[in-house]
Order: sequence, then C-alpha cells, then structure tokens
Amino acid sequence: MNNKIRVVVSGAGGRMGREVVKLVLQDEDLTLAAAVDRSLHDIDAGRLVGLPEAGVTVTGDLEAALAAGDADVLVDFTTPQSAYANTALSIKYGVRPVIGTTGFTPEQIEELDKQCQDQGIGGLIAPNFSIGAILMMKFAAQAAKYFPHLEIIEYHGDQKLDAPSGTSIKTAEMIAEAREELRQGNPQEEEVIEGARGGYYNGFRIHSVRLPGVFAQQEVVFGSFGQTLKIRHDSYERAGYMPGVKLGIEKVMGYTGLIYGFDHFIE
Amino acid sequence: MNNKIRVVVSGAGGRMGREVVKLVLQDEDLTLAAAVDRSLHDIDAGRLVGLPEAGVTVTGDLEAALAAGDADVLVDFTTPQSAYANTALSIKYGVRPVIGTTGFTPEQIEELDKQCQDQGIGGLIAPNFSIGAILMMKFAAQAAKYFPHLEIIEYHGDQKLDAPSGTSIKTAEMIAEAREELRQGNPQEEEVIEGARGGYYNGFRIHSVRLPGVFAQQEVVFGSFGQTLKIRHDSYERAGYMPGVKLGIEKVMGYTGLIYGFDHFIE
Amino acid sequence: MNNKIRVVVSGAGGRMGREVVKLVLQDEDLTLAAAVDRSLHDIDAGRLVGLPEAGVTVTGDLEAALAAGDADVLVDFTTPQSAYANTALSIKYGVRPVIGTTGFTPEQIEELDKQCQDQGIGGLIAPNFSIGAILMMKFAAQAAKYFPHLEIIEYHGDQKLDAPSGTSIKTAEMIAEAREELRQGNPQEEEVIEGARGGYYNGFRIHSVRLPGVFAQQEVVFGSFGQTLKIRHDSYERAGYMPGVKLGIEKVMGYTGLIYGFDHFIE
Amino acid sequence: MNNKIRVVVSGAGGRMGREVVKLVLQDEDLTLAAAVDRSLHDIDAGRLVGLPEAGVTVTGDLEAALAAGDADVLVDFTTPQSAYANTALSIKYGVRPVIGTTGFTPEQIEELDKQCQDQGIGGLIAPNFSIGAILMMKFAAQAAKYFPHLEIIEYHGDQKLDAPSGTSIKTAEMIAEAREELRQGNPQEEEVIEGARGGYYNGFRIHSVRLPGVFAQQEVVFGSFGQTLKIRHDSYERAGYMPGVKLGIEKVMGYTGLIYGFDHFIE
Repeated sequence: MNNKIRVVVSGAGGRMGREVVKLVLQDEDLTLAAAVDRSLHDIDAGRLVGLPEAGVTVTGDLEAALAAGDADVLVDFTTPQSAYANTALSIKYGVRPVIGTTGFTPEQIEELDKQCQDQGIGGLIAPNFSIGAILMMKFAAQAAKYFPHLEIIEYHGDQKLDAPSGTSIKTAEMIAEAREELRQGNPQEEEVIEGARGGYYNGFRIHSVRLPGVFAQQEVVFGSFGQTLKIRHDSYERAGYMPGVKLGIEKVMGYTGLIYGFDHFIE
Repeated sequence: MNNKIRVVVSGAGGRMGREVVKLVLQDEDLTLAAAVDRSLHDIDAGRLVGLPEAGVTVTGDLEAALAAGDADVLVDFTTPQSAYANTALSIKYGVRPVIGTTGFTPEQIEELDKQCQDQGIGGLIAPNFSIGAILMMKFAAQAAKYFPHLEIIEYHGDQKLDAPSGTSIKTAEMIAEAREELRQGNPQEEEVIEGARGGYYNGFRIHSVRLPGVFAQQEVVFGSFGQTLKIRHDSYERAGYMPGVKLGIEKVMGYTGLIYGFDHFIE
Repeated sequence: MNNKIRVVVSGAGGRMGREVVKLVLQDEDLTLAAAVDRSLHDIDAGRLVGLPEAGVTVTGDLEAALAAGDADVLVDFTTPQSAYANTALSIKYGVRPVIGTTGFTPEQIEELDKQCQDQGIGGLIAPNFSIGAILMMKFAAQAAKYFPHLEIIEYHGDQKLDAPSGTSIKTAEMIAEAREELRQGNPQEEEVIEGARGGYYNGFRIHSVRLPGVFAQQEVVFGSFGQTLKIRHDSYERAGYMPGVKLGIEKVMGYTGLIYGFDHFIE
Repeated sequence: MNNKIRVVVSGAGGRMGREVVKLVLQDEDLTLAAAVDRSLHDIDAGRLVGLPEAGVTVTGDLEAALAAGDADVLVDFTTPQSAYANTALSIKYGVRPVIGTTGFTPEQIEELDKQCQDQGIGGLIAPNFSIGAILMMKFAAQAAKYFPHLEIIEYHGDQKLDAPSGTSIKTAEMIAEAREELRQGNPQEEEVIEGARGGYYNGFRIHSVRLPGVFAQQEVVFGSFGQTLKIRHDSYERAGYMPGVKLGIEKVMGYTGLIYGFDHFIE
C-alpha cells in the first residue's frame, strides 16, 4: 500500500481530467494525493466523476497541493496557457510532471529539461497518450519506405473546429521524413468540385471527415502495383488514453530529465 | 443454339470492348455477330482478346455490320462523340442498342426513345453497368432519410484525371434528393490545410483518394448518435461490369422504347 | 408542456434502463412519470444516472406506478422472465408498452395484441432499437437477391457469452429468406484448423470476433465477379439505441394494437 | 545492355510463371535467358503471355537451359515435388535460384545452403513475395506486444481448398512468438452455431472468409480499452507479387549462401 504512486491531478474537472481521476481512484497501483481545478472545486473527487466518495476534496490551489510534500507525480491536462507554469511549479516541488498539453516551444522544453535534471527527477510532455495511435504512426512511417504512394483519411466528431487533426499532421510529418520525395497523382488532374482531392502535404493528401457519433479514427492507405496496405486506428472514447497515461506515470518514476513525446516508450 | 442472342460489339478494341467480346465469346447464351473497331481491325476477334480463334474478323465498318441483318443487339462502349450516331444507326437497322457511354443530352435521349418506339424495339443507355455500384447508390439514398449526416470517400487509380468521380457525383445527387436539407459540420470550422475537408456538395463532403493499384472503390459513411453505418463497393477490374452488361443484353430483348440508367432493372 | 409524453421506465437501474431515464429527462418532448427498479430504488432518478436531481424517486412497485393513472407509455428493458407480466400489466392500466426484451412466444404476442386492441392502445415489442442495425439487415437482404455469395462477420466485446450474436442470426434469417438457395464454397474445402470457416447457416458462414474495446459491430460482405459490396454497422455505446427508443415512444401513441419488431417503422 | 540480369523462368506456363515471364520481358533491368515448362512448350515466350514475339521459345528441358551457361538467376514457381531438384540443379550450374515454392524441409534448406556456399553464389527460397503481406505480418507481431488481444480475418476466393490460409498461419506464428501467452475470450463462451468463433490458435482466433471476386486479403484486428487497431493487406492480382520477385532477383546477385524467407530484405 505504501508503494502506491501518489498522484496530483490538475484540471480534474475537465473531460480528460475526470478520466484521470477515475483511473487514479480505480487503479490499485495509484493513489490520489490531490485533485485540483480552478473553476470546479470544493466537492469530493469521487463524486465529481460519478464514483463513491473518495475522501479527497477538489481544491482550486495547485501550488498548495504540490507543496504538501507527499506527491510523486502531477498529471496535468489543462490548457496551453497554464501548462508551462504548472510544469515548472511541479518540478520546483520535486513532483514529476506528466503533461498532456500541446503548445510548448523548444526553448521551454529545454528549460524544463534542465530543471528536471537539477531536481534529479523525470518528466514527460506528451501531446498524445494513445498507444494505438502511436503504433499507427510508426507503422505508417515504416511502410512509406516501401510504399511511397499513400493518403491519410481521418475521422472526428462533426463539431471539431480544425481540419486536418493534429494527429494526422504529426503522422504526415513522420511519413514525410521516412519516404523518398514524391509528388503523387496525375499532374493534369482537375478538381470538378474544389477541395475534392483533400489537403496537400509534401506530395500526398490528407482528407478530414467530420461526422456525429465518431470520436477519433484515422486510416493511412498505401497503394502499389496490385495491392493496398491499410493501417487504421479507431478511438471510441477518452478512456482509451488511460492505459497510456498510466504507463507514463510509471515510466516517469524511473528516469531523470524531461522526455517529449510518448513514442519514446514504444519501440 | 439458334436461341442465342446475336451481338455486335462496337469499340471492340477498347478496354471495355475487349471485355464485352470475351463475354460474348464465352457466354453460352450469346454469340458474336460482328466486332467493330475503327482503328484496330482485320484480326480475329478471339485473338484480339487472348482467346482461341473465333472465326469473326474485326471490321472497321459499323453500318455494314448492322446492315448484315442478323444481329439482335449492339453493345457500344466507344466515345461520347460517336455514341449518338452509332445508337441511331443501330435503331435504324432494327438492332437493339446497349450503350455504355455518357454525354447524351435529354433531347437526344427523347429522340432515340421515339426511334425505338417506331421500330418496336428496346434500347438501353447506361453510364454504369455495375450492379454493386447501383445497389450502393440506392442504399445510400435510402439510409440518408434516417441518417442525414454523411460523407462520401471514393478511391481510384492515381492517373485518373477528374475528381470527384462520376459515380460519386451521381451518388451525391441521389442522396441530395432523398435527405432533408442539411449543412453539416461546425459553422466555425477552419481548414489548417486548404482542401482537407474535401469537396462541398449540398451540405456534405466528397473526398477523392487517388492511389496506384486501386481500380474503383467507394464508401458512403453515415454518422449518428453512438453509431456509424457504412456502405462500400470495391471494383477490382473491368470484368466486374460484365454481369451487368449481360443482364442489359437480355433485358433489352423484352421491352419496347429506350431506357436510360441501369438502375431501372434493380428494385 | 402538457403535450409532453409521460413515460414510466421499468428496469431503470439496468444499463439500458439508465440510458432511457437519461433520454426521458433530457428530451423536451418527454417527461418522467415514474422510474421503477426492483433492486435499486429509493434514490432520485436524476442522481441515479449522474444528472441533477429530477424530483422523481425510483420505486420498486411497477403496478403502483402504472395505476397512478397519469402515464402514457411504459418503456421496459428488464428480463425475458418479467417482460410478459410487465407488458400485460401495462396494457391493463391503459399505458402503452414499449418493450426491449426478447423471449416472447408467438402465442404471447397474439394475446398481448388482443389486449391492446381491447384497450384501444398501441404497443411495441422490439428486440433491437438500433435504426442503423435495422437498415444494415434490410440492405443485406436486398443485396442478397443480386449477390447470393456472402458472409457475415460480427464483432462484440470479449466477455460476451454467446456466438454468433442475436443480430447476426436475425440478419442471416432475413438473407436466407431473400436469396436463392445456395451452398457456397468449394465442396472439397478442408479446415486445417477446425472452425476456421466459421459457423454454417443456410449455405453461408457467420464469423464471431470477440475483442475488448468493441461494443457491437457487424459487416455483411458480398462477393461477385470482380467486385465486393460491404454493409457495415458500428455501435459504439448503448446511447446509440435511444433515437430508436424515442421514435418507438412517439409511434406507439399513434396506432392501435401490438407491433412486433422495430423494422415496421423503417421503410 | 550487357548489364541486364539474365533470368531463366521455370514453370513458365503456370499462373505465377506467366507473370514472371511478363516481368522479365518488360523490365529494362532484366532479360529472358530461357523459359521452361514441362507441359506447355515449343511456343514463343512472348506469345505465351499475350505479349509480342520475344524470340525465346519455351522449352521442356530445364537442365539444358541451365547448362547453356549464360544465365544469372533461375526463378522457379513450380510444385513442392519438383522444387528441391530444380534448386539443386540450378546451383550445380552456378545459376542463383529464386524459388517461390513451399514444402522444403529444414534439412533440405541446410543442404542447399551448403551447395550455394560451395559454389559461391546466392540463393533465395520465399513462400511469399508480397512486400505488403510481409509488412502486415511484421506490424502485427510488433503491435501484439502492446495489444495482446487480437483476431485474424483472412479472405480468399471461394474455390480455395484449405482454411485458414498459409499467410494467416505464418502471421499467427509470428504473433504467438511476439506476444505474452494469453487465452482470449470468456471462458464460459458458447457457440450457438458450431465454428462461429473461428479456428483456435495459441489463445486467439483465425477466421477464413471465402468469396468469389476476392483474390487475397487479410486483416489483423487488435482490441483494447476504448480502441481498435487494424492492419489490413489486400492483394488484387498475382502481378502484385512481381515487385517482390524483382527485388529478390536483384538481391540474390549480391550475397553468398541461401536465404529462407523474403522478410530478410524488409527491415
């Protein structure tokens, strides 16, 4: 029981934060040191997520929670605006940060790495905690060496604002690095309806489908002489990220310095 | 044996024409009355398609072939330029036209229908002979009544010139007629890469994928609360149209007047 | 406000029952007359499903709830054991039954229909409320007329006890009725690993995949000369049935007698 | 021109052999030294495969073709019965064997390796020349380390005799080696229709679909908390193996000894 990893959850009232609170309360290797949310506090953390009373009241003060001195790891799914300050604060108090927010600059990452080194603790910033999504990206980049002709089709809910998705752009970058330079398609090709051929990226195309009932899906399709190869990842719910979050919490206990990108833990 | 339907194949040297010649030579209900091709003639029709000698020499003169008086049906996969003249010629000689070419005007169709009525024979003009593609379109239109949120993704070879495909536009028209008016997606949606959201048609989107190794595939995806419905048709080769061509040849023997669209034969 | 349909939910504490309670509390056309559950009662119906207090306490006594006299419709997702009695009780008190349970005999259905007729009210028994699943089954049966070669592949969670699923068997029955008699496959076919070819039904095969993370998915694949046609339905969560339940509640207000099968409402 | 690799094709009249002849005649890096077929000879090799006259007459005598002394590589797609003798003969005459036949024993492979070493030439025996299929198998084995719950679904033409396919069994072996031991599914699971759950292999299931119009397709589906990962390879025609055959021909020129399995050339 004393071996449980003690976790502070920041952004506990958000959609990802609630899943993290559930994970920490239900996983036998983890225990909830504190739950913090700026706007939604003073209620029991268990009640917040539809579980029995947990005996931990959500608080609005992250620094006090970190200063209490008994936490091992901070898990933070908040906003790009607050993520840097939260991460620095966490390191200052010797609490290992596991951060699921984008928007860090290379300089910030370097600075936070130095702080982790100075404190002798590990840290992790990961824009994507989905093991399946990371495998999809790795396999797609590998396949592109042999099958340079490909397109990406990604599916998200119909209220999503940006297209293409962050994951599809990350996938496209990894593919572009792996494959030989190639401009696909017929040079004389014409769009009868503008946009039909999708978004152009480094010689290939990305298509963004937006439909109600879809959470997050992506397919990379490779075409070659007489064959196609498809790699597809379907996420059905936020809970699907939790095995990755747990792996991150465990990993961060075992090294020193800041790691950027969850894919470092996947061979 | 005398009951076999006697077929003239026009455009016999083209990619679809060769498949029709193969069909007619190999199907026990059909016999080859003549094979016509403007640029590729004076060789045996069997040899032309990689089969044993057929005893029918490909000719360059369509009128002579029709005038010979012993043909029941003309199958014509030529070009929009020659299709109208070929069809009219065929009707004139009492040979039922089965035409797989696009580009007829409504006036031309009306005129050819009148000619068929006058001659007391049937005729068929069909831009698509694929039974599977027609079922896909019918099902998609039906589903759109219950699931108005949808997108179309179509796949063709990477040398295709136009996007989206003719079949996907036809599907989109049928869906637009069937479903309630609806502009899908988030009104504030933004394309980080231009074209990512595909081509806009009547409130929904069409995405055109172009890859080597693909012949013709199309998927219509419907999204609703907690579920998706997909209807997908994959064509692997031109030969896949031949069951439809044969059905057309048989059907045209049994009615009077010109029918436009193969879907009339599919409930 | 007085036009809202007043609904009694039976089995309110079950997994489907909770979704129905949520639906009724959140839909502006419906209002919750009573919530009944044998084992889970004396708590507020809103709290039961993670919503704000609803002012309706879950009770253990169905008859009292029906006898209160102000309900229009009973929605019952309980067990085959209690479903018949609950339905009869509902009709007795003039409350229209909408029943999502299997296991009724033809005699019971006939008897309940007579009771509905006598009371001058409508009733509905539907083993499947998923509009998407019903469309999939209808399309599959239609396609089987033209493409008699097919197989069914269904996917469910890895803890499901029975294989193949009820939906796949229902689909298979509808296909068997629609298509010509046909024993597919090579008569000399041999299974190197027993069971590889799946379950045999009326000449074709059903394959049951069981994996964690999957809720309910089914694909019917048709193969023909040079082409395949696929019809696929993916259910991601129980909530996906609620549009069908709501349609059932509305429909049952408008006719007299008992209807069996939700597909009667889908053309 | 003198740098072209000179290829003898054995089994030239078979379905794979014809594709190899086409490849060798059409690829500018290769030239046809001889074409051999026991039952189908004395015709021009170009004519045999529907190409213009090639000036090489198909012969029935493999040893004479090899003894002619001007060949670099033998490509042999014949039968398990003749493959060992053909390979040994080829090595004897210093012609590098590229063999696409199964059925060699480990002792035979060891013996042929020694012969290659003695002659100072390379050799390749590969049951599968499809680069896409090999990537699918590699990715599946890699993914199984992170997602131990999986099933394999493979699709072939409806006249195929054995189920499951050789490729699916090879995939299953590679997965079994990579993942932790696991018996999937509910221990109380029951088949309402026998065989529905597919063929059992090392704790998971293989499903074999057989449909007309399908050439060779395989999907490995992984299921985990809230997500699925799918890796799918679709082969549309025999020609899809030719890029692999060509890579094999090129590779075999550059090493000494016998390699078993095409996957050695794919990282």
